[in-house]
Amino acid sequence: MQNLGYYNGKIGLIEEMMIPMNDRACYFGDGVYDATCCKNGVIYLLEEHIDRFFNSAGLMRINLGYTKAELADILNSLVKKVDADELFVYWQASRGTAKRNHIFPTGVPSNLYITITPAPLKGTDHRLKLITREDTRFLHCNVKTINLLPSVMAAQEAEEAGCDECVLHRGERVTECAHSNVSIIKNGILKTHPCDHYILPGIARAHLIKACKKLCIPVDETPFTMDELRDADEIIVTSSSKFFLCADELDGKPCGGKAPELTSALCKEIMDEFHSYVGA
Amino acid sequence: MQNLGYYNGKIGLIEEMMIPMNDRACYFGDGVYDATCCKNGVIYLLEEHIDRFFNSAGLMRINLGYTKAELADILNSLVKKVDADELFVYWQASRGTAKRNHIFPTGVPSNLYITITPAPLKGTDHRLKLITREDTRFLHCNVKTINLLPSVMAAQEAEEAGCDECVLHRGERVTECAHSNVSIIKNGILKTHPCDHYILPGIARAHLIKACKKLCIPVDETPFTMDELRDADEIIVTSSSKFFLCADELDGKPCGGKAPELTSALCKEIMDEFHSYVGA
Repeated sequence: MQNLGYYNGKIGLIEEMMIPMNDRACYFGDGVYDATCCKNGVIYLLEEHIDRFFNSAGLMRINLGYTKAELADILNSLVKKVDADELFVYWQASRGTAKRNHIFPTGVPSNLYITITPAPLKGTDHRLKLITREDTRFLHCNVKTINLLPSVMAAQEAEEAGCDECVLHRGERVTECAHSNVSIIKNGILKTHPCDHYILPGIARAHLIKACKKLCIPVDETPFTMDELRDADEIIVTSSSKFFLCADELDGKPCGGKAPELTSALCKEIMDEFHSYVGA
Repeated sequence: MQNLGYYNGKIGLIEEMMIPMNDRACYFGDGVYDATCCKNGVIYLLEEHIDRFFNSAGLMRINLGYTKAELADILNSLVKKVDADELFVYWQASRGTAKRNHIFPTGVPSNLYITITPAPLKGTDHRLKLITREDTRFLHCNVKTINLLPSVMAAQEAEEAGCDECVLHRGERVTECAHSNVSIIKNGILKTHPCDHYILPGIARAHLIKACKKLCIPVDETPFTMDELRDADEIIVTSSSKFFLCADELDGKPCGGKAPELTSALCKEIMDEFHSYVGA
């Protein structure tokens, strides 16, 4: 297949798949999701992504109704059906299908929604241009929910500014980006926002920290300020689809680029881990 | 028909209607909505609700692609098809149908989604039991978006506590409820949160203020505190589906009930306006 849409066991091309109007995802955004890339039929870090997905569902009190192993089996079988070597694998669960009512419906199963699309992996050489905006999102940013309108608006603002991503900040405190985590390097130390309700516990972020430890780069998980961002030796943006990218422009001004040996070493470590995992 | 679902011109029973998996409502909650009640074939305050809907769409930069009059015509024609005198009329627009990408899609129309369900109007005598919770929502509460997960969670907590609604507060400042506005009366003055990004500009709230003016009750649109809420002579909850209700219990303790003549007069004014509008 060219791509694959799945909904509660039904399979078809994504653009032809339909879901019930009464799925609570449609009118409340009452769902959680996770996503990662796949190469050579191997879904990268699937176990970690499924762990986070179950954690998101638990925090939003969505009773998934299947095991982690069952979900992994479904995803692993579906990626085989799509005719491309490099894929983006996305899955979400909504609380169920029911007449619109804020109160949880009873006796209805969660809905499982999956899309698998060809997505050629991009290199890590591209330098990002970033804008910055006040972070107006809710205080559940640790949960990967489908309530993503503020992220959509921020990403669009970056696009219209000819940039790649939008760094969000609450006052002076930098949190994360519209759809990635952001970290800085200053004086040989990696600084990144701690995992709390202000940021997603990014899996690429966790692997960046792991790479730092391997390379004996100290990691400081405390919030950093807008001034520290502007003054950083390097600004690093991580996500599960783009791994590790450095920025060279922030709000129209040059940034980073002052610790290229460190970022090259980190990037190599992260990409080596990926290639080793997927056997490529 | 027993109820009616509408999606971009197609009509059917809500429970049988399907929408594309790629509607941005499904995976980003990238849409806005509005809703009101209908009696005798008359959609209550339709013009005000459509004005707010267009305002919400404009703030989220959703290009609806139809006029207010065209939307009103569609809604007015659809309510005639449902076999009940008292209805709940709900409509939402999403940014369109496209492959998942935070950046706005180009060249795709917005999607119009409507549900019309029988909903017998309830009396205004019922006294509400309320709980209170920290307001963890985003800073776009003035926009009626379908990013409603925190409201869903708060409403469910109220339900599980055997209560009717959840009053939200940011620290000591009371904002609104999970799906209604909240106001208080103290010493003959109505106090209610001003219209900013912390609350929905409720249409029932606006009509409460209008009723106060008619009855010469002073209105103070400044935020009030949790202490003021607990100490209020009356706590009033307003919404487009339930109009005007007073509370008698707050976090398990008695509340309000100390200005029954004022609340009776306000309630009569509000319900008289409704009955006059719908000709019943």
